[in-house]
Amino acid sequence: MVIIGTTPETASILAVGSELLGATRVDTNSLYLTASLEELGIRVVRKACVGDAWDDVLAEMRVALERAPLLVATGGLGPTDDDRTKEVLAHLLGRRLVRDEKILASLKERFRRRGMDMPAVNAKQADVIEGSVVLPNARGSAPGALVESGGKTVVLLPGVPSEMEPMWRDAAAPLLGLAHGAAVYRRVLKVAGMAESAVEERVKPVYAAHPGHEMTILAAPGEVQLHFTARGTREEAERALDLIERDFRSVLDLEIFGRDGETLEGVVGDLLRLHGQTLAIAESCTGGLLAGRVTEIGGSSDYFLGAAVTYANAAKALLLGVDPATLERHGAVSEETAREMALGARRLFGATIGVSVTGIAGPGGGTPEKPVGTVHIALDASDGAREHKKLLLPGERSLVRRWTTSVALSMIRKHLLARARAVR
Amino acid sequence: MVIIGTTPETASILAVGSELLGATRVDTNSLYLTASLEELGIRVVRKACVGDAWDDVLAEMRVALERAPLLVATGGLGPTDDDRTKEVLAHLLGRRLVRDEKILASLKERFRRRGMDMPAVNAKQADVIEGSVVLPNARGSAPGALVESGGKTVVLLPGVPSEMEPMWRDAAAPLLGLAHGAAVYRRVLKVAGMAESAVEERVKPVYAAHPGHEMTILAAPGEVQLHFTARGTREEAERALDLIERDFRSVLDLEIFGRDGETLEGVVGDLLRLHGQTLAIAESCTGGLLAGRVTEIGGSSDYFLGAAVTYANAAKALLLGVDPATLERHGAVSEETAREMALGARRLFGATIGVSVTGIAGPGGGTPEKPVGTVHIALDASDGAREHKKLLLPGERSLVRRWTTSVALSMIRKHLLARARAVR
Repeated sequence: MVIIGTTPETASILAVGSELLGATRVDTNSLYLTASLEELGIRVVRKACVGDAWDDVLAEMRVALERAPLLVATGGLGPTDDDRTKEVLAHLLGRRLVRDEKILASLKERFRRRGMDMPAVNAKQADVIEGSVVLPNARGSAPGALVESGGKTVVLLPGVPSEMEPMWRDAAAPLLGLAHGAAVYRRVLKVAGMAESAVEERVKPVYAAHPGHEMTILAAPGEVQLHFTARGTREEAERALDLIERDFRSVLDLEIFGRDGETLEGVVGDLLRLHGQTLAIAESCTGGLLAGRVTEIGGSSDYFLGAAVTYANAAKALLLGVDPATLERHGAVSEETAREMALGARRLFGATIGVSVTGIAGPGGGTPEKPVGTVHIALDASDGAREHKKLLLPGERSLVRRWTTSVALSMIRKHLLARARAVR
Repeated sequence: MVIIGTTPETASILAVGSELLGATRVDTNSLYLTASLEELGIRVVRKACVGDAWDDVLAEMRVALERAPLLVATGGLGPTDDDRTKEVLAHLLGRRLVRDEKILASLKERFRRRGMDMPAVNAKQADVIEGSVVLPNARGSAPGALVESGGKTVVLLPGVPSEMEPMWRDAAAPLLGLAHGAAVYRRVLKVAGMAESAVEERVKPVYAAHPGHEMTILAAPGEVQLHFTARGTREEAERALDLIERDFRSVLDLEIFGRDGETLEGVVGDLLRLHGQTLAIAESCTGGLLAGRVTEIGGSSDYFLGAAVTYANAAKALLLGVDPATLERHGAVSEETAREMALGARRLFGATIGVSVTGIAGPGGGTPEKPVGTVHIALDASDGAREHKKLLLPGERSLVRRWTTSVALSMIRKHLLARARAVR
């Protein structure tokens, strides 16, 4: 068993895979790894992407180890012929590859559980570099590796983010972090349903009040994230981050829905469960995406009863009981229809809260009075609360749809917060 | 005046700037440059990001020029102390930096037009590497450079995309492309609902039959992509790509659903419209994501009528007419329930095709008989066709859900293809 004696000060990151050298893909793994390395007090000094060719991977590993004592490499651990990261590293370090019968058996078992025989090509995933630590893969077939040699450390991880992240977090990082000291700590605050520029305006004074701290605004459709960092011992850093967070909260207040790894759908789910409420949804233009987000959370069946995706007008009337006269007079995309849909969803599924979405996501279907991006969102609760919001969203179809789900979730969250205050 | 004698075959890309080594920023310049280089017939073999430190930039430039005859570097041309890309390159090549009075005058004029005196720091932007070609900057103060030395070519560009892109397009690329003929053309074939290793097994002979063509397999949940390239004139390349595509189709046949930018939901939508069919969906474990994918396509209201997301058992019975006895006897996650849900969805919305999904996405809810990842998908068509598929999917909740939507869409596609053949 190899134990890392001291935490390295610097690291380099290498992404292996010809697909990463095309004109469309970026290496997002390096962002996750950088954030985590910073938490361990390890600074990333370079990163590179290279194709699958043997000589290329070899040259990159060599230069990476010249430039920093730690190399974290992703990709090239799969079963196919062009997956050779492990083989190249063994060659570079002059070590043998040994087939591990235990890993082989678990690979075969993995396939058997899915009713398949293991393809012969997968066997090489059971090869282990002599003297390395095997990093188990909870989510896929490719195990990773941690190898020490001549004061240098190499970590090999799969390229698929959903396999790479837990392997790094649960197996590799704990080994590397044994001796860590002054690290960079990061905190993220999240805001839903506000434009990036509006958030920027409000937080400007906070930036000015905390010079010397790296602060970044990142925007996703319907969500804005405030990233900020502090250095020092955990205690010092947490204290500094607390002060910055307090200032952000003083200017954004309820608009901040969560911190760090929290998601809007997770926060809404927690509130629904906490308050013993149940949710039903009626969707038109978002076509199931809102329910899809709510059910992204494991255990959402505790509070989510169901959704009616009513694309056709007939379905709005038949399933949700929207008055055909309302559809006739105000149209499917209107405050009146949205309100009747929310009530209808609540009654249909017997929930305490009904939420509805109807709008024009584009690219077609817009009119001068109701241009593409017009969306109505409504909420109807069994305690009598009723909400409505009209949006006029810029951007293309998928952006309009994603934005809309964020605003709808935000509406549910604010309703539950207001309800809690009223009850108290 | 330097003229590039022959277009290099390969290039490496280097992004200089400490900000690119943080946890939030990616180097998007390299994507633009890659696309443009490919059009010139130049293949990118590696790319790297490095901070501003002198030794780091020097080491990166050295290794980049060892690995490819052309290096395109972005960033570090600004006026500040840590902008030193040009200085490092001059040092590496053993060339002098000479102040260019014409550039200096135009820099001063640039500031004067904005009512400012040029800050002293900006003067160094007028320094030119001896024997290099100055690349004018139409949008900013930093000129670029093109330098040839010992059969190697280096292009220095600013890091700001809005300055980098026109400088590359209008000044650098034309010089590099003087001798260009053979470009790289890329094609992508897409397969749904098959595991990556299963696709790999089938296509191995195709790889072997076309040596010299770059081929890559990329996997997303429920989807596998085959990327392959050819060089030459457009006509030559298209002919070569056609041959490779024919061979891929001979081993994968109907499993290939699309090419290049096509999506599974788009292909399914086109088939539904073509055959005048309408679709209704009943979802449990995917919670709206399947309907969400179908409605990602603009104009999907032509064929998509609606979906019932029935998370609660009561909703399955009430909305979809699933027999409570079926739920009691076989459980919500069963072939029998899936089949009744598909029929129920079709009737509820009056569609010609009903598709249902019910399963256990995890992390909770699994049993020894029905472990997490168990999913039943069913299809019920008004022409009497009925399908069912049981899946046992590995991986976490979001992967299980995404995989399931791909298999369901694939089932609809194959039903429509079989139907078309039967009618003919």
